[in-house]
Amino acid sequence: VGREEVLRPALRAADPSGRLPIEIRHASEVITMEDSAAKAVKTKKDSSIRLACRLVRDGEAQGVVSAGNTGAVMATAKIVQGVTPGVIRPALASVFPTKRGTPTIIMDVGANVDCTPQMLAQFAVMGHLYSQKVLRVSKPRVGLLSIGEEEHKGNELTKAATPLLKELPLHFIGNVEGRDVFLGSADVIVCDGFVGNVVLKVSEGLVDAVTKMLKQSITASFLRRAGAFLSAGAFVDLKRKMDYAEYGGAPLIGVKGVCIICHGRSNANAIRNAIRVAADFARNDLNKVLEDGLSGPSAGFAAGVD
Amino acid sequence: VGREEVLRPALRAADPSGRLPIEIRHASEVITMEDSAAKAVKTKKDSSIRLACRLVRDGEAQGVVSAGNTGAVMATAKIVQGVTPGVIRPALASVFPTKRGTPTIIMDVGANVDCTPQMLAQFAVMGHLYSQKVLRVSKPRVGLLSIGEEEHKGNELTKAATPLLKELPLHFIGNVEGRDVFLGSADVIVCDGFVGNVVLKVSEGLVDAVTKMLKQSITASFLRRAGAFLSAGAFVDLKRKMDYAEYGGAPLIGVKGVCIICHGRSNANAIRNAIRVAADFARNDLNKVLEDGLSGPSAGFAAGVD
Repeated sequence: VGREEVLRPALRAADPSGRLPIEIRHASEVITMEDSAAKAVKTKKDSSIRLACRLVRDGEAQGVVSAGNTGAVMATAKIVQGVTPGVIRPALASVFPTKRGTPTIIMDVGANVDCTPQMLAQFAVMGHLYSQKVLRVSKPRVGLLSIGEEEHKGNELTKAATPLLKELPLHFIGNVEGRDVFLGSADVIVCDGFVGNVVLKVSEGLVDAVTKMLKQSITASFLRRAGAFLSAGAFVDLKRKMDYAEYGGAPLIGVKGVCIICHGRSNANAIRNAIRVAADFARNDLNKVLEDGLSGPSAGFAAGVD
Repeated sequence: VGREEVLRPALRAADPSGRLPIEIRHASEVITMEDSAAKAVKTKKDSSIRLACRLVRDGEAQGVVSAGNTGAVMATAKIVQGVTPGVIRPALASVFPTKRGTPTIIMDVGANVDCTPQMLAQFAVMGHLYSQKVLRVSKPRVGLLSIGEEEHKGNELTKAATPLLKELPLHFIGNVEGRDVFLGSADVIVCDGFVGNVVLKVSEGLVDAVTKMLKQSITASFLRRAGAFLSAGAFVDLKRKMDYAEYGGAPLIGVKGVCIICHGRSNANAIRNAIRVAADFARNDLNKVLEDGLSGPSAGFAAGVD
């Protein structure tokens, strides 16, 4: 979905024989990275993201994948695709690599900056279902991101959320700390969108910094360069493990249909993986599961899910 | 300060000729890492940390350095050493390495989990003075940790803090994001203690995870091992750059006297650097500067500081 005069030649270049099953839908407007999301959503009625979300709403498509303006994609998906019945607020989930080898989901990573304890409890349910239905973890361990393992350590929000989390029919392991993220101590880590977004960006920034520092340092002498050449495979391995592109974007969980939001600097591999994740979500009908899980009392959730 | 029967033999082993100018003060009790800070501070009246803080209060020592139970050290320092006049809440400052080469201070990293906008504004002043007087940055750039550069991006706390920060007579550069921490975009980054603690622990955990993944991957083949041997210097460089031990602990700023809190797994090098930082704080009489800076209106701060 986008400006046909841009997409048509690009598609022709990539697929000269026209064999790929890709249809182009023309949208005359583009929401840029610089646009204010709130404003652009109101004024650009024929933007590509709005048209894409409409296709999902009308059943012509099962999901949307976008590497555009995150705020605008989130707002448009909520307005046009609509919110799953029972969901207080859709949340953005991001997958983090861990030392353990299994990925950890953190949610929310930026859809809701100020959260209530009830919202955190719902993020736990949504994360649990994502982990179980899409990542195939049979009994996901769900942790609450805080600043100490003991229950009394945390801020007002985490302390108020703890009793709600304990009541849920899922495997709640209590507080986890920042260092647990990359240890893989939990399959799902719940936090408000402000904290989650900071964690996401600090991690990206740190991997970037470490890689660059190592490169500078390695090119400082011939011997080191020679050594780096021999052990290059290890760096490629690491890069693949730490690379967001491998994990295929962040699903906005709790909107009807599927909506996957990719990093603004996504490469072809990241987009391919995001499309794969979108297909997984659609195939597993996560929304139906979510709707069953969240409507009714928590007993209903248990009955619907486990 | 501690149990003489433990300290005396250790000191004798390290300094058989007794030439080091180290006095031992006996304290009969120990607050352990497992103790609840709130309870231990009340019940263990002859703990080593309490006696050490008393020495500072009574002018026998200029500062305390501890790698013990962080909560207990913070609480005891506040109670026994006392809070600097004008300070709402003392805050823990931590130094982060950056790609730029100059360190960034983040505060608060855990002393105050729920903060008011006024507290964040004071953290900015305290961080500014620390950066200027101890780290010798002539005009520290002070940023507010948030989830987007634009002023309207943030949570309720950061949005309410922004106008207060703008009024301060220091170089406030607006919002910074998680990825700016390791870029070195700011000399001082202000946030509440919950977010700061998460940033600190996520960073430690990630450096740990990356190092271990790389090691595993490098030892996977002979060629890689040979390469790693040749380029080992680069890893040593990186380790030194990223190692918390080089930065000498986190000062609790806003208590009378000096209080430096070290990581529980500090090695000899970390303790040496923490003692050096404590001496720098005492020599620069940061507390006097702080008191002058915070008492009276912000005009007084300007007059007292710049």
